[in-house]
Amino acid sequence: MKKSLLLALILITLVSPLPSFADEGMWTFDNPPRKQWKERYNFEPSDAWLEQIRLSAVKIEGSSGSFVSPNGLVLTNQHVASGQLQKLSTSQRDYRRDGFLATTQAEELKCPDLEVSVLISHEDVTARVQGSVKAGMSGSEAEAARRTQIAQLEKESTDKTGFRSEVVKIYNGGEYWLYRFRKYTDVRLVFAPEEQAAFFGGDYDNFTYPRYCLDVTFFRVYENGQPLKTQNYFKWSAAGPADGEFVLAIGSPGSTNRLLTVAQLKYQRDVGNPLQMQVWTSRREALLRYGANGPEETRRALATVRSLANSIKRLTGQQDGLSNPRMMAKKEAEEKALRAEVARRPELLQSVGGAWDEIARAYTELPAMAGRSAFSTLVWSRLGQMASTMVRYSEEEVKPNDQRYEEFRDSKLESLKFGLFSPAPIYPDMEEVILASWLTEAEKTLGSNDPFVRAALDGSTPSAVAKSVVSQTKLGDVAVRKSLFDGGAEAIRKSDDPLIALARRVEPVIRELRAWNEEKILNLETAAGQKIAAARFAAYGRNVYPDANSTLRISYGRVLGYEEDTTLVPYKTTFSGLYDRAASFDEKVPYDLPQRFKDGRVKLDLSTPMNFVYTADTIGGNSGSPIINRKAEIVGLNFDSNIQKLPNRYWYVDETEGGRAIAIHSAAIIEALRKLYGADKLAQELTGR
Amino acid sequence: MKKSLLLALILITLVSPLPSFADEGMWTFDNPPRKQWKERYNFEPSDAWLEQIRLSAVKIEGSSGSFVSPNGLVLTNQHVASGQLQKLSTSQRDYRRDGFLATTQAEELKCPDLEVSVLISHEDVTARVQGSVKAGMSGSEAEAARRTQIAQLEKESTDKTGFRSEVVKIYNGGEYWLYRFRKYTDVRLVFAPEEQAAFFGGDYDNFTYPRYCLDVTFFRVYENGQPLKTQNYFKWSAAGPADGEFVLAIGSPGSTNRLLTVAQLKYQRDVGNPLQMQVWTSRREALLRYGANGPEETRRALATVRSLANSIKRLTGQQDGLSNPRMMAKKEAEEKALRAEVARRPELLQSVGGAWDEIARAYTELPAMAGRSAFSTLVWSRLGQMASTMVRYSEEEVKPNDQRYEEFRDSKLESLKFGLFSPAPIYPDMEEVILASWLTEAEKTLGSNDPFVRAALDGSTPSAVAKSVVSQTKLGDVAVRKSLFDGGAEAIRKSDDPLIALARRVEPVIRELRAWNEEKILNLETAAGQKIAAARFAAYGRNVYPDANSTLRISYGRVLGYEEDTTLVPYKTTFSGLYDRAASFDEKVPYDLPQRFKDGRVKLDLSTPMNFVYTADTIGGNSGSPIINRKAEIVGLNFDSNIQKLPNRYWYVDETEGGRAIAIHSAAIIEALRKLYGADKLAQELTGR
Repeated sequence: MKKSLLLALILITLVSPLPSFADEGMWTFDNPPRKQWKERYNFEPSDAWLEQIRLSAVKIEGSSGSFVSPNGLVLTNQHVASGQLQKLSTSQRDYRRDGFLATTQAEELKCPDLEVSVLISHEDVTARVQGSVKAGMSGSEAEAARRTQIAQLEKESTDKTGFRSEVVKIYNGGEYWLYRFRKYTDVRLVFAPEEQAAFFGGDYDNFTYPRYCLDVTFFRVYENGQPLKTQNYFKWSAAGPADGEFVLAIGSPGSTNRLLTVAQLKYQRDVGNPLQMQVWTSRREALLRYGANGPEETRRALATVRSLANSIKRLTGQQDGLSNPRMMAKKEAEEKALRAEVARRPELLQSVGGAWDEIARAYTELPAMAGRSAFSTLVWSRLGQMASTMVRYSEEEVKPNDQRYEEFRDSKLESLKFGLFSPAPIYPDMEEVILASWLTEAEKTLGSNDPFVRAALDGSTPSAVAKSVVSQTKLGDVAVRKSLFDGGAEAIRKSDDPLIALARRVEPVIRELRAWNEEKILNLETAAGQKIAAARFAAYGRNVYPDANSTLRISYGRVLGYEEDTTLVPYKTTFSGLYDRAASFDEKVPYDLPQRFKDGRVKLDLSTPMNFVYTADTIGGNSGSPIINRKAEIVGLNFDSNIQKLPNRYWYVDETEGGRAIAIHSAAIIEALRKLYGADKLAQELTGR
Repeated sequence: MKKSLLLALILITLVSPLPSFADEGMWTFDNPPRKQWKERYNFEPSDAWLEQIRLSAVKIEGSSGSFVSPNGLVLTNQHVASGQLQKLSTSQRDYRRDGFLATTQAEELKCPDLEVSVLISHEDVTARVQGSVKAGMSGSEAEAARRTQIAQLEKESTDKTGFRSEVVKIYNGGEYWLYRFRKYTDVRLVFAPEEQAAFFGGDYDNFTYPRYCLDVTFFRVYENGQPLKTQNYFKWSAAGPADGEFVLAIGSPGSTNRLLTVAQLKYQRDVGNPLQMQVWTSRREALLRYGANGPEETRRALATVRSLANSIKRLTGQQDGLSNPRMMAKKEAEEKALRAEVARRPELLQSVGGAWDEIARAYTELPAMAGRSAFSTLVWSRLGQMASTMVRYSEEEVKPNDQRYEEFRDSKLESLKFGLFSPAPIYPDMEEVILASWLTEAEKTLGSNDPFVRAALDGSTPSAVAKSVVSQTKLGDVAVRKSLFDGGAEAIRKSDDPLIALARRVEPVIRELRAWNEEKILNLETAAGQKIAAARFAAYGRNVYPDANSTLRISYGRVLGYEEDTTLVPYKTTFSGLYDRAASFDEKVPYDLPQRFKDGRVKLDLSTPMNFVYTADTIGGNSGSPIINRKAEIVGLNFDSNIQKLPNRYWYVDETEGGRAIAIHSAAIIEALRKLYGADKLAQELTGR
């Protein structure tokens, strides 16, 4: 394997500076990799095929899902649904832990604040956005001009079509596209398994393979109180994929940073990632301390603890990649090749040549500010986040739409309010623990004289501040939040709610840091990044894909095992393996089985495939992505990657390095629904049989 | 895990230079680690307990085994038995591939050349051996004196007791012990599974874990035509070991090199191991070429191919360890600590101080000679090995016993003849391919002017020589070999057998290289090594164990899973896992199941444990070792190590590094015998039920 890697490296470095090969890329629907599909897989879909796929995919909870029946049934992961399951649960009924099945339509449970959206159209507005930039403008002026233009485009579109409209920037600003979304807010829970089935092996097995998880949940979208009727849905493949079969993953990968320069990568490795690790770790520790108070506290904290554990393990994998000299050397070689190409072309050299050094220079100032930026926030407490949002909005709403912070533009307001006025329960004791530990960590890290720390503590201590504001705030009441929000800037300014007061005190510090970051880093790296992106376009043509940014993408690859530690890892696992792994640990946590699985073993065909791996280019946000075959049938449900794949935030992890995405096999879902859950009706809705 | 390794490293380096900790050591029965057993496991066996263990263990095929019934039943691995299974097979009946079960005693199959031996007594003869060395003797003179003394001791003992007697050197010459063996040559095959069950996952899964192998074979020792009656045998534990349970492994680990200096290790890394890899790889390639001719050829080549694949993978793991800078740094730190200790003690400094540099100096000449030594041999062809042995013996037998090459002393003659006159089949076409490819490789590596190559080819080509000698030799006939051997030096000298002629031609070169190696390297490194060993005694007392050298040892540890790639590896596997892994690869080779396993699945309790891992210090030669609990009951049968453990040739791989030995669970053997093989009688003989 080492030899083939070396060979690949030599080929990249010497023969072709183009870093696009193998099953690489999270492609936009306007520029699918038709050439690669045809050459590698003899796959030539029609435009109609692609449109049908796009309209059958949904975005849900920042992740991915899909319609899987003509009656609005939506398939996603249990871990994507986890927040909603938590919100639907009480101390008496824990749907996250115990699962849920609606045996009739009437039993389907309406989610408090779940939104499902579909990308219904997309149009290139690059010319209009870039046209707003006039010769002689500074970097900040140009960015402001673009923002104004973008806000106008979004408003025009919303006014004209009634659809949520967003201008998204891709190729680091190489292109701007107007996306329109149809969105649904009456979404009801149909089925969720026990979390122990969805997340078998817990944090240990997370980001590993072989795996044995049934990480699946079904919702149903309603329109006017009735299940949505739609022709845009994926049919079901009972057989699932064969070894080596071509598959596609449709979804909204969250974020990649593949165009980062080496200077930016080294900053991430040496400063950014370690800081992020500190933030997440301290937060997790606070929640674990809270959870230690009892089973109900554990239940309340668990969804967030699980999400943090996931983030921390992912970050560890990414950091492993950055710390790998061989991988970093590959990135350096790529950058060198592109800079050499730029140097060969006088017109590029003049316009782009300095971009890498500009970024490197700007980043010399960042480490000193990065800690302040990371810790000067209240967002880790739900109440604190709400208070901050309201205070910030009150200062933004008085500005013209196009001059507001992006997240407060008119186009975003509806979703903003949907979250802010959610009836989901808030636990004051948990809020207090989180806020106190956060302020403690901030003080420890930044020192008592730091502006944020001084403003937040106001002469008191972290625990006293947290106790005082959480016990006295009225923001836990949705009606109070609504009335404050509707009261506008005046109401916020005059509010004597202590949490609003705390948010008001820290707001100037947060704004100042944000301004510094935008001026010194973001604008500059956007401008320089656009130059580099332009150079890439010039060098490699359109045969590249843009970084992921939570917009809809199509990835492709093969179902394929790999070599690890001198042996083979199979392309799929089976139910037998689930029972083996549980028994191998004497069913100790987290390898215990739900009672239903223990009792139901005799009913199962144990050789039914359970999970499988494939080579497509995916990342966080692809959770819940449908995996389809060339007939557009669902053969699997993406839910994770193995640890080898995690550096793919920064570069594509070639299939020879063992990086794989992991999916639940379509046959596993049907087998479990029918034999373990008695959900024949649901299975029939999926398979038609 | 990295942290704990660092901590361990700091502890070793700063606190204690003694490299003995955790479950380390392959201990001789005269010096068991009673202190560690008591402290770590509260285990205090009596002398009688230890003697009973020793007398129940056997050496078989250079590996390990044990008596498991009062009727001479012997348990070992199928891969240890593999050579005998091959020899018992014909083109019509392949016991290696298809397995074997004697349903009655009469059906038990007598093996052609299988010897089983028991260590019945051991006595310290260090004083007598060292007493033979007089002041003023050179290194070579001293070694010659010791050899003479050793030969005398062996002869005396054999004459007196009738038992095979051998003086073994341990602690690098720190001690000499006289071992007496009772040996049995009427050994019959009772049971072997299909090789695909014994070796499920083939070369891929070899040296990996989790594993699902039934690598077990039973023989029965006969005495005077009747099953041996013995009170020295291990009882069977039906339950097997619990997670974390203390266990002991009894067996004959082949060879470790833990006292090598850093200079010696670097030679292995840079010259010795790569050369060995070339030898094995070229040999395997020749056999694969031969095997490609058809199924019968495949069958003939398979046992050796498998054994070579095993050796190559093991060497790869060892080389990975040597190439790991962290591990090498640990070894360098140990050497530095010992040298510092020596430097602190004037008496040691004078006698020992120069030893490390002496070795380093001697090794500067070795690389140039190593290739010649490795390739100047005929042993890779069975016929070539026999011819060489007879030619060499004819020159040795005329010498006094104590001046012969070690392998031709009187004490070894019986075993020598047992092998030489074995009726096991020889395949001329295979012999020819092996010999031709070996001579080709030797010529390629050493050049046409090399003395060995010139003597071997005698003006012809490798393939012509091979074709000619193999087609014309009569050595394939046991009677011819016997008559030549019995004819003595005269018969060998006069023989016109072309293979004997070839062996005669190359013999002087081989002897010259052997002499060079003994004079320039072996004697010097023995003398220097003894000084270093003496320094270790002085520094650390008797609280250390000697390097493995194929003599009986006792190791200990715990049944224990480990962490790998951010997740947990369980302490045991189950039959469910076997079926999972087979189905996960769609039962493709080498993950196909014997028909018996496919048909028998419904009969099995799939949660029965199959294999398990434990921390004891083992190495090749421990194959077939009984794993016993503190009641001396068999809980498992050692058959392999994981890849992490392979550097343990050079140093103990600490349990935190994930190194583990792998055993078959006692319950798996009984479950398979009863439910799959219908071998209830055998199961009853083991369990008494």
